[in-house]
Amino acid sequence: MRGVPARVSVHFMKLKFFTTGGTIDKVYFDAKSEFEVGPPQVSELLNDANVTFEYAVASILRKDSLDLTEADRALIREQVAADPATRIVVTHGTDTMILTALALKDIPGKTIVLTGSMQPARLRVTDAAFNLGTAVAAVQTLSPGVYIAMNGRIFNPETSRKNVASHRFEELA
Amino acid sequence: MRGVPARVSVHFMKLKFFTTGGTIDKVYFDAKSEFEVGPPQVSELLNDANVTFEYAVASILRKDSLDLTEADRALIREQVAADPATRIVVTHGTDTMILTALALKDIPGKTIVLTGSMQPARLRVTDAAFNLGTAVAAVQTLSPGVYIAMNGRIFNPETSRKNVASHRFEELA
Amino acid sequence: MRGVPARVSVHFMKLKFFTTGGTIDKVYFDAKSEFEVGPPQVSELLNDANVTFEYAVASILRKDSLDLTEADRALIREQVAADPATRIVVTHGTDTMILTALALKDIPGKTIVLTGSMQPARLRVTDAAFNLGTAVAAVQTLSPGVYIAMNGRIFNPETSRKNVASHRFEELA
Amino acid sequence: MRGVPARVSVHFMKLKFFTTGGTIDKVYFDAKSEFEVGPPQVSELLNDANVTFEYAVASILRKDSLDLTEADRALIREQVAADPATRIVVTHGTDTMILTALALKDIPGKTIVLTGSMQPARLRVTDAAFNLGTAVAAVQTLSPGVYIAMNGRIFNPETSRKNVASHRFEELA
Repeated sequence: MRGVPARVSVHFMKLKFFTTGGTIDKVYFDAKSEFEVGPPQVSELLNDANVTFEYAVASILRKDSLDLTEADRALIREQVAADPATRIVVTHGTDTMILTALALKDIPGKTIVLTGSMQPARLRVTDAAFNLGTAVAAVQTLSPGVYIAMNGRIFNPETSRKNVASHRFEELA
Repeated sequence: MRGVPARVSVHFMKLKFFTTGGTIDKVYFDAKSEFEVGPPQVSELLNDANVTFEYAVASILRKDSLDLTEADRALIREQVAADPATRIVVTHGTDTMILTALALKDIPGKTIVLTGSMQPARLRVTDAAFNLGTAVAAVQTLSPGVYIAMNGRIFNPETSRKNVASHRFEELA
Repeated sequence: MRGVPARVSVHFMKLKFFTTGGTIDKVYFDAKSEFEVGPPQVSELLNDANVTFEYAVASILRKDSLDLTEADRALIREQVAADPATRIVVTHGTDTMILTALALKDIPGKTIVLTGSMQPARLRVTDAAFNLGTAVAAVQTLSPGVYIAMNGRIFNPETSRKNVASHRFEELA
Repeated sequence: MRGVPARVSVHFMKLKFFTTGGTIDKVYFDAKSEFEVGPPQVSELLNDANVTFEYAVASILRKDSLDLTEADRALIREQVAADPATRIVVTHGTDTMILTALALKDIPGKTIVLTGSMQPARLRVTDAAFNLGTAVAAVQTLSPGVYIAMNGRIFNPETSRKNVASHRFEELA
């Protein structure tokens, strides 16, 4: 068929998911009367979606992305760079997702897609499953580089930002 | 940044969603004690996902895909071909999704992605939002052609099938 | 405190739940492209609600209530009558819930509450958990007899009906 | 039918719901990366449950119950006492639900039931709808007095407590 690029077959490769915390993983702790970053939701989301590709999930951190330090970003970069996988999805809080993406940009030969959600995956209405779906397709179809998959779009972290006021990612003017 | 293909910018283009029915749109009718194809769920799913791209949704049919006729497929083909959009997502029942994809394959110059779900979008646990997310990313990143986005993978309809027994899409041996 | 009737302490007694099928237990089978009565949802609903009373669940039938026969009702009556529990909740399809309730009315010394739902428990929006909650409170607070707990109200099956057109239970005029 | 107490007919009376905040009403604010008390969920829960009794909802406060002051409790007491309804449900945070219940105990001639949830109503898995269902049935079936409806049981606030460690309400030893 016209226009089925060879790269589509890469979806046979094993995908790697790294989790770092963020809103997507937030659960409600009655004892503290607040939401906190809980166990990674990725495996449950992929299971609910009945995905059939091979994958592995590794948790690096469980932090609100506003609390990530440069040391944390160095750790994320180290683990992503060291992993043999060439197609990697990183789930991350939205507030500093761009910063972490930029910290990963010099990693050669890998397609890396960062995603997360504005509403926790455990909510009845959430963008988590949809966003993870966009990241999973993007990581299989895009050439090496670092991308942000949010709001149904794919962003270049060097030319985009999170617009906190409007709760969305957007291209820089 | 390395490897951000020019095509990524296509996500600024308006996306078009055509709905034809299928499990993704099934709702439960107490009066009939059964599920039936209801109103298209795409708009609600895109709204829940807080997408920021421009899009339009048009409903062509509301049928279980097992009930689609050749005339129905001709109608779908006609509407997809006639639409000015070059990035089109078609939501469809899974049982004959491959057949409809093949009926669309000669449409030139458009990236067309078919998706649906194995569980209705209105269920608490469903693959609908994730699958729509994969379709939305695939339609923005793939070159012209017709694709199936299911089970977290992107399939060439000429070399894949729905394995009814295992409730999944797979590549032909 | 004023007005705390002695019977409130009955909630320490073990409650028994009998399931017979109905919409509350319907799940979607992709293989058949339709909803069918699946495993009883009561245990999952009680678990989600974090209930702390002792209880047991027994499945008698897995039928749409339109398909229940007089033999089925005799079986339900036999099992409810034979059970040592004096506080019993029966989950049941709504279409013939009244008929089954009337078949149970001569069982002495037990408070029996029938409930179910208009939308399957597994839907994102459903009356299942709320209805089960009303049944659980009613069975602990009402004196012996047979009751219907639906639409947030408690009905005497001898003076009420399901209004199919309006999808609700109501008192007979 | 045996044992249908006259009081069952009270469910024809209009029910009044007062909301004060608490976990049941918590929503996630991305801008603050935390959950906060949002708009009352009662109306949405009652609508999802397709209830058919007449009711009115009034919001008194939107606070985590740990933040309620004596002045707040005086306000709640004043509004509950002044309302013409004799069957009243109060949604409330769980941490100080007992204290508020005790503050209401001298109100004569009304059946008052306090409920809430350990997990926000907007979560995919929550006790909110079930708990509200128990409160709705309890308020229609119990004689005048003040009750707590949590964990599928009905408690006398003078002889019960919230066991914070085990996230449940229980009778005092």
